[in-house]
Amino acid sequence: MNESLLLTIAVLGGTGKEGKGLAYRWAKAGYRVLIGSRSSEKAVTTASEIMELLEGSSSVVGTTNIEAAQQADIVVVTVPYSAHRNTLESVKDALKGKLLVDTTVPLVPPKVRKVQMPPAGSAAQEAKEIVGDDVEVVAAFQNVSHEHLLGEQEVECDVLVTGTSKKARVEVLTLVEATGLRGWDAGPIENSVVVEGLTSVLININKEYGSTYAGIKITGASNPAAGSE
Amino acid sequence: MNESLLLTIAVLGGTGKEGKGLAYRWAKAGYRVLIGSRSSEKAVTTASEIMELLEGSSSVVGTTNIEAAQQADIVVVTVPYSAHRNTLESVKDALKGKLLVDTTVPLVPPKVRKVQMPPAGSAAQEAKEIVGDDVEVVAAFQNVSHEHLLGEQEVECDVLVTGTSKKARVEVLTLVEATGLRGWDAGPIENSVVVEGLTSVLININKEYGSTYAGIKITGASNPAAGSE
Repeated sequence: MNESLLLTIAVLGGTGKEGKGLAYRWAKAGYRVLIGSRSSEKAVTTASEIMELLEGSSSVVGTTNIEAAQQADIVVVTVPYSAHRNTLESVKDALKGKLLVDTTVPLVPPKVRKVQMPPAGSAAQEAKEIVGDDVEVVAAFQNVSHEHLLGEQEVECDVLVTGTSKKARVEVLTLVEATGLRGWDAGPIENSVVVEGLTSVLININKEYGSTYAGIKITGASNPAAGSE
Repeated sequence: MNESLLLTIAVLGGTGKEGKGLAYRWAKAGYRVLIGSRSSEKAVTTASEIMELLEGSSSVVGTTNIEAAQQADIVVVTVPYSAHRNTLESVKDALKGKLLVDTTVPLVPPKVRKVQMPPAGSAAQEAKEIVGDDVEVVAAFQNVSHEHLLGEQEVECDVLVTGTSKKARVEVLTLVEATGLRGWDAGPIENSVVVEGLTSVLININKEYGSTYAGIKITGASNPAAGSE
């Protein structure tokens, strides 16, 4: 039995398309997945939908954000930035000693093509301020068009992983591989400003060049863990 | 006669490998290029070296940073961050009404793997503060290993172009194409934090994965101007 099968991942805001796509890929890879939502009813529906897509014996359960955070080893937050602070504050007590993965991009509508970071420096650094010292925070998946994750097609976008320690980044790189994407250790949590801000750059490229799913790939380096170049 | 032949580009700090590579590619594309340096003697030597590499009738002249800025239509600054402010202040009066292209990455040794931006938000925004309202500022080329530019090989790195107006970005995208690289309009000057910071991310990837020239490519979008993808 693979070690990953022993781990439980909570996906907070898992009823949105971002969270649902990640939950689907992790369940498919053998992780036990908890879908969290403010409404446990909605979470149960999403969990059923994912189970149906998987047609197998995977474990996806829907519940509230708080219960999901309490029962998980790794907690992934996939809510819109407007719900970021409230969600984190509501689950804060359940996070102690755990790993928090933040996928949030702090877009400020209507000017989503312009990088506008919060005073903490980035959404991930803001998360770290909220959850405190007992929680490792890693930022990842900010540039991926998550709706692609619900299908089987290859997602043409690498995942840049920043975080509060190398150990935590390595743990999340394993989660990235499990989704079928290629991840890269992109350094300390302070570097999350680059990856979050890159989403505004990609939105700008989509608008300027008529594309929908602009992404990035790292070139000139090889990543043995991902088994591809 | 191509319009580009009428334009003169000053490359300040053009004796460094970054500036020299860009100067070589622009001269090769038909632009008149002025190499600027604090020492006009060094600049003259570099200009001769480039002329030798080109083996042709191109125009590359070495002079001081100030004279180069005065005589050029477009001024490109390629100095290390430690000389950024002083260089810009020394040529400021010569820039009025012109286009400034900033290639600077504000690395803070020894922690060059960590994004550490100046109070203005980025080196490019700092440049804008220094040169004032009469100068359009565009940031570009921060992620390219410029030593590659002196050879003929394809450089596996796209150029993200941010700047104070769309018109100025489009002008610089033409300069990017002239070097043989693929450029993208990456939005307003505030987005330069992403592109400058990406250099620290790429340095981190080089150190973690044993590579030397990690770069990035935009995926999922096509760029007719560059005629590729």
